[in-house]
Amino acid sequence: MRFPKVYQFGPISIPETQVFYTSQHCLGLVNLKPIAPGHVLVISKRVATRLHDLSPEEASDMMISAQKIGHAIEKYYNGTSLTMAIQDGPQAGQSVPHVHMHLIPRRQGDWANNDDIYDELDNKKKGVDNDERKPRSTEEMKEEADRLRALFE
Amino acid sequence: MRFPKVYQFGPISIPETQVFYTSQHCLGLVNLKPIAPGHVLVISKRVATRLHDLSPEEASDMMISAQKIGHAIEKYYNGTSLTMAIQDGPQAGQSVPHVHMHLIPRRQGDWANNDDIYDELDNKKKGVDNDERKPRSTEEMKEEADRLRALFE
Repeated sequence: MRFPKVYQFGPISIPETQVFYTSQHCLGLVNLKPIAPGHVLVISKRVATRLHDLSPEEASDMMISAQKIGHAIEKYYNGTSLTMAIQDGPQAGQSVPHVHMHLIPRRQGDWANNDDIYDELDNKKKGVDNDERKPRSTEEMKEEADRLRALFE
Repeated sequence: MRFPKVYQFGPISIPETQVFYTSQHCLGLVNLKPIAPGHVLVISKRVATRLHDLSPEEASDMMISAQKIGHAIEKYYNGTSLTMAIQDGPQAGQSVPHVHMHLIPRRQGDWANNDDIYDELDNKKKGVDNDERKPRSTEEMKEEADRLRALFE
């Protein structure tokens, strides 16, 4: 047997079973605590804190990856739009010090107000680190990553 | 005299006096109704509705432009972080059918909760089309664009 490859998301170790997309400089990850079905992250492979820390090649790759992943998950999760956000720095709500883009498929009526979705990303409100949001099991995350990975094959 | 050049932002005509940044495929625009000092937009030069409609070259250029503009306005407006968001499609809150990225300098305590900022982008709440938000004068927008343009010269 071989040990699974592990990627770094800031100080967090992410097993390859949670990675569904790989490009030259970026990764697509499923979420421990998604705020909606299909809520995924695009991160740089290299640990870099701020958007400005990325090289032009890394920044370009992130946006092209976001296009591909966004388009795929929107269709897969029967969305009609897509929310895309980077909380670039602690005062913008960044909780993990590693550049990451949130991609969330959207559809009519999913939140009472379109941008209430951002309350869910807010740590002081209902955010990802809120204890009310139950983390998913490793098996559940692997299963979603397997399904999403197939979209890019 | 010559007439000012005009760019299209969806159905809206934007005079060049409101453009502070130009790259091969993108523009940086000041806002009619900024939700915070330094709230600007990055748009594709070409009228395209969704992120997925951009070519890889346009998408790359948008992210590299966002890096440059974001870094410059964060410093200029004494921010310590940056909020970056694309409302990609009507169900994600997109009000103008033309790909545009919001860039907003952030600092400690600017909003009670970090992500309350998104309420301001929400049309059904306090969004940009809300009548309570008074549009700025042409002169005021030109003056800000002139100051910002100088950061890139």
